[in-house]
Amino acid sequence: MEKIARQGLLYDFYGALLTEHQRHVYEDVVFYDLSLSEIAEEQGISRQGVHDLIKRCNKILESYEEKLHLVEKFEQTKKLAREIQSLTKAFSENRDMGLIHRIEEISGEIVELEAH
Amino acid sequence: MEKIARQGLLYDFYGALLTEHQRHVYEDVVFYDLSLSEIAEEQGISRQGVHDLIKRCNKILESYEEKLHLVEKFEQTKKLAREIQSLTKAFSENRDMGLIHRIEEISGEIVELEAH
Repeated sequence: MEKIARQGLLYDFYGALLTEHQRHVYEDVVFYDLSLSEIAEEQGISRQGVHDLIKRCNKILESYEEKLHLVEKFEQTKKLAREIQSLTKAFSENRDMGLIHRIEEISGEIVELEAH
Repeated sequence: MEKIARQGLLYDFYGALLTEHQRHVYEDVVFYDLSLSEIAEEQGISRQGVHDLIKRCNKILESYEEKLHLVEKFEQTKKLAREIQSLTKAFSENRDMGLIHRIEEISGEIVELEAH
């Protein structure tokens, strides 16, 4: 996964655990793509300070994922749900009942994943 | 949801964020159903100490859920996946193509949920 996409995903899951200040600066960099200089000026801190804050936030977010693995799990679930979508489309074309059986299996896998 | 079931679910999601000591005592109470006295003796702390620790753990776990809502989201996903399972069974009986359309919709809902 591209680094910026992963940062965004980790932030989506665990961003609420950062401080408001961290979130503000993190969003400016990761989502609004502002330059370190712009943010430094806006926040009244040094460029290095912004750089360190982002690095620290990434570390915090990665450490939550290391412990909880929720991004990983959600990605798996999403992949399975997309598979079901494809299978329903394929079924509409070829009416192969084996596909329905496979959809049933995959939905069972999702339930299992979500149940731990 | 029954209190003990909710405690277990919150622990499944966020337990890794507690300290090892907290996890140990929490599991003894919530999963192994040991009495406060038994745990107090085993841990060399007072009954009140065990009681306070559990209360504090519940508060920590609930505060993660309040911020992240991941248990809530996983429950929704699980419910949708169960719905797909039922629909595949119903389809095997009545071959109503409307059910396939509904399965496609629901799998799309899961993808959306997981994508934020």
